[in-house]
Amino acid sequence: MAEKGPITSPLADAERDITAKSLQATLVDLVDLHLVAKQAHWNVVGSDFRSVHLHLDELVSSAREFADSVAERAAAIGAAPDARAGTVAESSGVPEFESGWRQDRDVIEAIVEILGRLIRRLRARIDETDKTDLVTQDLLISVAAKLEEAHWMWQAKLSGS
Amino acid sequence: MAEKGPITSPLADAERDITAKSLQATLVDLVDLHLVAKQAHWNVVGSDFRSVHLHLDELVSSAREFADSVAERAAAIGAAPDARAGTVAESSGVPEFESGWRQDRDVIEAIVEILGRLIRRLRARIDETDKTDLVTQDLLISVAAKLEEAHWMWQAKLSGS
Amino acid sequence: MAEKGPITSPLADAERDITAKSLQATLVDLVDLHLVAKQAHWNVVGSDFRSVHLHLDELVSSAREFADSVAERAAAIGAAPDARAGTVAESSGVPEFESGWRQDRDVIEAIVEILGRLIRRLRARIDETDKTDLVTQDLLISVAAKLEEAHWMWQAKLSGS
Amino acid sequence: MAEKGPITSPLADAERDITAKSLQATLVDLVDLHLVAKQAHWNVVGSDFRSVHLHLDELVSSAREFADSVAERAAAIGAAPDARAGTVAESSGVPEFESGWRQDRDVIEAIVEILGRLIRRLRARIDETDKTDLVTQDLLISVAAKLEEAHWMWQAKLSGS
Amino acid sequence: MAEKGPITSPLADAERDITAKSLQATLVDLVDLHLVAKQAHWNVVGSDFRSVHLHLDELVSSAREFADSVAERAAAIGAAPDARAGTVAESSGVPEFESGWRQDRDVIEAIVEILGRLIRRLRARIDETDKTDLVTQDLLISVAAKLEEAHWMWQAKLSGS
Amino acid sequence: MAEKGPITSPLADAERDITAKSLQATLVDLVDLHLVAKQAHWNVVGSDFRSVHLHLDELVSSAREFADSVAERAAAIGAAPDARAGTVAESSGVPEFESGWRQDRDVIEAIVEILGRLIRRLRARIDETDKTDLVTQDLLISVAAKLEEAHWMWQAKLSGS
Amino acid sequence: MAEKGPITSPLADAERDITAKSLQATLVDLVDLHLVAKQAHWNVVGSDFRSVHLHLDELVSSAREFADSVAERAAAIGAAPDARAGTVAESSGVPEFESGWRQDRDVIEAIVEILGRLIRRLRARIDETDKTDLVTQDLLISVAAKLEEAHWMWQAKLSGS
Amino acid sequence: MAEKGPITSPLADAERDITAKSLQATLVDLVDLHLVAKQAHWNVVGSDFRSVHLHLDELVSSAREFADSVAERAAAIGAAPDARAGTVAESSGVPEFESGWRQDRDVIEAIVEILGRLIRRLRARIDETDKTDLVTQDLLISVAAKLEEAHWMWQAKLSGS
Amino acid sequence: MAEKGPITSPLADAERDITAKSLQATLVDLVDLHLVAKQAHWNVVGSDFRSVHLHLDELVSSAREFADSVAERAAAIGAAPDARAGTVAESSGVPEFESGWRQDRDVIEAIVEILGRLIRRLRARIDETDKTDLVTQDLLISVAAKLEEAHWMWQAKLSGS
Amino acid sequence: MAEKGPITSPLADAERDITAKSLQATLVDLVDLHLVAKQAHWNVVGSDFRSVHLHLDELVSSAREFADSVAERAAAIGAAPDARAGTVAESSGVPEFESGWRQDRDVIEAIVEILGRLIRRLRARIDETDKTDLVTQDLLISVAAKLEEAHWMWQAKLSGS
Amino acid sequence: MAEKGPITSPLADAERDITAKSLQATLVDLVDLHLVAKQAHWNVVGSDFRSVHLHLDELVSSAREFADSVAERAAAIGAAPDARAGTVAESSGVPEFESGWRQDRDVIEAIVEILGRLIRRLRARIDETDKTDLVTQDLLISVAAKLEEAHWMWQAKLSGS
Amino acid sequence: MAEKGPITSPLADAERDITAKSLQATLVDLVDLHLVAKQAHWNVVGSDFRSVHLHLDELVSSAREFADSVAERAAAIGAAPDARAGTVAESSGVPEFESGWRQDRDVIEAIVEILGRLIRRLRARIDETDKTDLVTQDLLISVAAKLEEAHWMWQAKLSGS
Repeated sequence: MAEKGPITSPLADAERDITAKSLQATLVDLVDLHLVAKQAHWNVVGSDFRSVHLHLDELVSSAREFADSVAERAAAIGAAPDARAGTVAESSGVPEFESGWRQDRDVIEAIVEILGRLIRRLRARIDETDKTDLVTQDLLISVAAKLEEAHWMWQAKLSGS
Repeated sequence: MAEKGPITSPLADAERDITAKSLQATLVDLVDLHLVAKQAHWNVVGSDFRSVHLHLDELVSSAREFADSVAERAAAIGAAPDARAGTVAESSGVPEFESGWRQDRDVIEAIVEILGRLIRRLRARIDETDKTDLVTQDLLISVAAKLEEAHWMWQAKLSGS
Repeated sequence: MAEKGPITSPLADAERDITAKSLQATLVDLVDLHLVAKQAHWNVVGSDFRSVHLHLDELVSSAREFADSVAERAAAIGAAPDARAGTVAESSGVPEFESGWRQDRDVIEAIVEILGRLIRRLRARIDETDKTDLVTQDLLISVAAKLEEAHWMWQAKLSGS
Repeated sequence: MAEKGPITSPLADAERDITAKSLQATLVDLVDLHLVAKQAHWNVVGSDFRSVHLHLDELVSSAREFADSVAERAAAIGAAPDARAGTVAESSGVPEFESGWRQDRDVIEAIVEILGRLIRRLRARIDETDKTDLVTQDLLISVAAKLEEAHWMWQAKLSGS
Repeated sequence: MAEKGPITSPLADAERDITAKSLQATLVDLVDLHLVAKQAHWNVVGSDFRSVHLHLDELVSSAREFADSVAERAAAIGAAPDARAGTVAESSGVPEFESGWRQDRDVIEAIVEILGRLIRRLRARIDETDKTDLVTQDLLISVAAKLEEAHWMWQAKLSGS
Repeated sequence: MAEKGPITSPLADAERDITAKSLQATLVDLVDLHLVAKQAHWNVVGSDFRSVHLHLDELVSSAREFADSVAERAAAIGAAPDARAGTVAESSGVPEFESGWRQDRDVIEAIVEILGRLIRRLRARIDETDKTDLVTQDLLISVAAKLEEAHWMWQAKLSGS
Repeated sequence: MAEKGPITSPLADAERDITAKSLQATLVDLVDLHLVAKQAHWNVVGSDFRSVHLHLDELVSSAREFADSVAERAAAIGAAPDARAGTVAESSGVPEFESGWRQDRDVIEAIVEILGRLIRRLRARIDETDKTDLVTQDLLISVAAKLEEAHWMWQAKLSGS
Repeated sequence: MAEKGPITSPLADAERDITAKSLQATLVDLVDLHLVAKQAHWNVVGSDFRSVHLHLDELVSSAREFADSVAERAAAIGAAPDARAGTVAESSGVPEFESGWRQDRDVIEAIVEILGRLIRRLRARIDETDKTDLVTQDLLISVAAKLEEAHWMWQAKLSGS
Repeated sequence: MAEKGPITSPLADAERDITAKSLQATLVDLVDLHLVAKQAHWNVVGSDFRSVHLHLDELVSSAREFADSVAERAAAIGAAPDARAGTVAESSGVPEFESGWRQDRDVIEAIVEILGRLIRRLRARIDETDKTDLVTQDLLISVAAKLEEAHWMWQAKLSGS
Repeated sequence: MAEKGPITSPLADAERDITAKSLQATLVDLVDLHLVAKQAHWNVVGSDFRSVHLHLDELVSSAREFADSVAERAAAIGAAPDARAGTVAESSGVPEFESGWRQDRDVIEAIVEILGRLIRRLRARIDETDKTDLVTQDLLISVAAKLEEAHWMWQAKLSGS
Repeated sequence: MAEKGPITSPLADAERDITAKSLQATLVDLVDLHLVAKQAHWNVVGSDFRSVHLHLDELVSSAREFADSVAERAAAIGAAPDARAGTVAESSGVPEFESGWRQDRDVIEAIVEILGRLIRRLRARIDETDKTDLVTQDLLISVAAKLEEAHWMWQAKLSGS
Repeated sequence: MAEKGPITSPLADAERDITAKSLQATLVDLVDLHLVAKQAHWNVVGSDFRSVHLHLDELVSSAREFADSVAERAAAIGAAPDARAGTVAESSGVPEFESGWRQDRDVIEAIVEILGRLIRRLRARIDETDKTDLVTQDLLISVAAKLEEAHWMWQAKLSGS
């Protein structure tokens, strides 16, 4: 993703490369998150079907919106983003989500696990970009804020039931 | 996708299996179409950048909306849809789209080729579902109508330039 | 419903009569569906109250909208539609729905059963109208698409709980 | 409708029973009003077709909205409402509305008669609830205000023509 | 309209030619319908002026929208549509509409006659396209549904007055 | 709250004082209701998290809106309203709501109890204002209507689960 | 206003006459209030111009809306309302408002006086209609609520400045 | 209206006086037009009730909007506008409109006559302001355009019926 | 178009005839402009397809809106407008636009030429109506303003490319 | 601004030059007005802060909108507009506005003076364009109407305080 | 607030505790700010009533929105927020606000003092969270930005008057 | 800009002065950017006219919105902002933009250059404010994010054409 291209960068080369890597990894995570959330949206069954079905679509919306911002930030610093199906399938940090009908409780647990993992990966990148690009860091912080909010809400559903 | 599940089908088994296969294949094509259209949206460069950049987002919207309808139709006939990144990467009918910055003219040609290919695949499925499920056929016809409209518009851009 | 009236028909007499019967029967089913869904909306109790209460109102909306389209299609082919309370009470295909407070799980099961029955009746009419009026058939197909989608969603709630 | 149920009442038993009876009777009248208004909406013919057709739909909207408020008020005082087709057909105060195409003038006269009758029934209930539940009375007053407004407008159409 | 052009067709040549002819004829009918409806909208007089004036504008909107869909469908199958004033004047199926102020009753009768004629022509094309292009047929069916609905409504105004 | 002030009252002194006391007490109850509902909104956990979380926000909205109307009615009769934190903490009729994470079922039971208590207090004030100010009474009736509706809905969730 | 007319009344004759008189007097007051408020809106000057200019338009809106409701209520009980300029000029309860440019403080004082007077007149009519028509009384109560709210706000501006 | 005031004029004194007179007369006409149109809106009866009732409200809206623009134009040229009930009753150019219930046909004829008269008065003022203030003339032209459009529409209703 | 009709004119006969001729000619030009712009919208091809395709639809909207205003102005001065296909084909001032697919550059040049010609015709009519009807002149000025703005924008596209 | 360019003019050369000069001068005045109004919006202090702060933003909006119309009109007559900071600073007719915090009363006086001056300049241009371009004159008249309305409102604030 | 709970934290224990304390204190400040701003909104009197009354409601909105974000951020890091009336009354940083009618100038001074104090407390927390949680810090920065903007605007009203 | 004023600062003097200088310089850059973007919007010609014309208006919107935020941030820290035409002309960092018609390619290159330069200046200020005011830094980061996004998009248009 960090090859020389037609878009100049407001960053020096080294900073651009580190920042670009953080953005590319975040982009793949977010695109995969939205694919898995949609998958769950269609395949969930159980007494909590409607609530989970609707809640997942909010996650899809957030993931799509942030994926767009992250990819366009990559372009803005002169690095071509890559979120093709193959790239996502290979390099995503989202754990395997089993196919077929899925019980509501299983879906909630899977989403909690996925969000926890993506948040940990994201926090590391927030540290990395502190020295390379504050604009990118600011964007990653807002992604983290949203994912951590979602993490709380999905966890809250697991309590005591 | 056609395994026995918690959702009963309004169709007999044989009809359900054929219909489910058509829907699953269309779902994968549409999800990949939207991933590639987003990829192009971010990576296009050239004097026609803005027009192509905006036009691609309309394709993304159509693809997303129809993917949702198609997946939910599969669920409605008792077949669990699958549009995870890995499944898409393996079974999509969308030809390879090269990574990195792409010149506007190249992008237009690629989109024209992709749409042409998806339309041919889709028309075959419209024939297949004529005997198995008119409701599904009706949905696939509306997908074809939209893709063929898009195909005309993207082709129109190639003429004489 | 098929008596001679002030509205000419675009169909020949025989085709008009068969089509009109399909439309009249569908109209009664849809009006009764909306009355029962409202009844359930007001009388449901249980821990899933809010989700079921809201979900039923979407069914009410769909049933009302399609009842209107179906009745106006009957008028358009020159047949006066009839959906008065007495007619609905006598000729509806919707099974009896018990009065009084109803537990959420019971309501879901009742809705699943009602939808399953209406879909079977509707699919027979789609076949009948294939030879008499493609415009009416197209409308019935869209009704079926919506009811089958609803059938999936209400069934999904029953799974494994 | 007034059987003991899972919902406690803010009213004493005697007051709750009288209030519940008023609400149940109003509910049935309003649901039948909306069924008849829809019936007329579809079957009216004559030079005033469009005006009557549109005007009836406003009556349908009001009747639906108030039916909802009335049924939910019944629930709120601990009485399960009943507006199933059979119940409506049996206990409604709306006079018989003939099936088939109806001339515009006939429709207007029928609506004027129906509204006049429902208003008389409603005013008696406003008096009854004065001692049992002011919240319910307030709701019935707003129903009367709307029906009397409609009564004026439909009567105005009959004058001198 | 069916000459070779820069837009490839998803149909074989013979099917494309038949389909294109149906679309071109429908396009001309719809464009002329909207011109005549506007003409009537401006020239109608009589006690029913306002109702007819407003009702005609809904016909204008439908005709414009469908004309657009039909023309773009022609383009999508590789046939250049033609709806210039001269072409419309020569090949339209809409009967002559007299110029000058027109009494409301005359306008209604003229619209009823025009719609009846266009519907008959359209139904023939729905049959023709059954074998050549289901996507086009689906579009023509939706045009017929709308025109037949309008036909009912305009006829209803003539009854018994 | 009933001290002499710069705003004249449309009521005589005695009536104003009684009415003002009713309004002030209602104001405090409603402000505390909204604080507790928000508290619950943030601290609820359990499998029904999302549904309860969203439902509570509707209660917050109602409470805020009515608090505003009640306070402004007090001002309109010349009595300065008081809803500062200290005043609310001391004089509210809302029972103690425990801090920390709260299980969904506990929250529902607490809300049902709180609403029941506020309704009882409110109904007494509706009686009191019957002789002092019909405008205020009308406002309190609409508050009661809303709280009793909410009471039904929250109770419905407790049934049989 | 209370002559026999083409609209039947839901009230007995004596009750209708008293109610009609209350409504007619209120109508005239409200129409005159809106004329005076508009007059002030255009002629106010002073450092508080903008605030008073905007605030007056809210009074105009309320007055217009309530005038419409009051007049239509009169019609609904079979009494023809009269709010022609001459009738308003003769029978309005609004005190004379001097023509020409008016200082902001003067305008505020005039509005406070006008509102105070209209409220007193209105409260008497609320008492009168208590025995003749609860629907009308309910409407007059909501007018009083709004005017008394406005009275507070305009008075508040006079305090201590 | 043309007395010296706190607002300076962009016009010389003579021009300001003539322009102010035109604006004041137009203002009174428009305010009276709206009062009469509202009066008719409430008192019309007859088979065309609904159409006339709705059509009149559009006239009310136009009259109100233009009255505001005209009054504010007067203020902008330094002349205090006057549209109090007494002023309107005395100086309006609108012919007397009889009180009580009015048959639809009578109402239409009255409106046609009123509009004809106001248009003639207005055209004279357009000529007068040609030499004194083009900004005012432009406003009066737009008032004339609207009133003449309305005149056509109300006349059209009278033709041949 | 200027024959005696049921609509009286605010203009003297001679002025009405000249004004009516100007309006009729403008109407035909605008209707033909919108037909040609739609024709171009559907048939344009070339690398600038999308931009031209969208830009043409704005021209269609303007032309339709102004055609309506111009026709209704003709009616308002008592002249029956005529914009039927035959009339447009015969009397329009728009030069021939060739059928079939059209290259984007050709379309732009054709639109520039058409607009230039219509503007010249329109400016002559603005002069003519200066003495006959200022209201009509005002309308034609606003048409000219819009067409000249469009002329600039379409010309701007031709520069230096 | 009047140099030969790629955009042809609907005006003869002499008329174009005079008109272009009027438009260019008006453009500069309006752009400067909006810069000064924003400057005041940010720097105003005093007890009337909020009212003045908000009122100024309406002036900013009007100035921006009209600047756009004026500049595009210049382009439409073939003259390139110029509103760069340097041009504005040199040729604007807006008097110097002192920097730093400004008391509310001072701001109001400054705005009144600025508007008075711009109106005088504008009225001269309305006269000039009467013979060169009625379309431009029409635009300048609407600018004057708005500025004179604003002038009244800002003056009204100065009266007697 | 920092007790072990059902929600895992993305932060280590020490960081979570410090961050939670900052969030809890900010939450209480914001909830109290909104209670006091509402109190002032209802009790303000004086010539600036309307401006202050409206301005306070914007402060209420900001305070409510940020309170929600702050409480949900606390939940997201695994700490249960507490904003019950008692907690607010005891631990808020907002100085005492006297009850009863308050003169506008007094209100403005009180708000300025309150905002100044809350800002100082907030800035200290921004420093503290710099080392514990950047996501929280980012949220507190946006709260500070809004409060400091409000502080400027309320101070501006005090200047020189 | 940093002189002592009526607005107290939440920052110490030294920090306030540095921060104020950064904000003032950014304000001037943004105001000039919007003036130049508007200038280009009106003067661009060439085959890409429409796309560039529309794209520039998005830049204008961003520049205006951020200028407002930046100026209000300066006020909030007690420094009076200055963006009068003269100040902008003298101290802006935007390079000279030539007057008259400009070819589309030239415009794109100029915008790319301007954005590049403003971004470099802005990044330096982000560093400076890191130690003086995190709230201001946060705002400047969001400005940089937007300008860098725009920089990418405008550069993308230059590639390979």
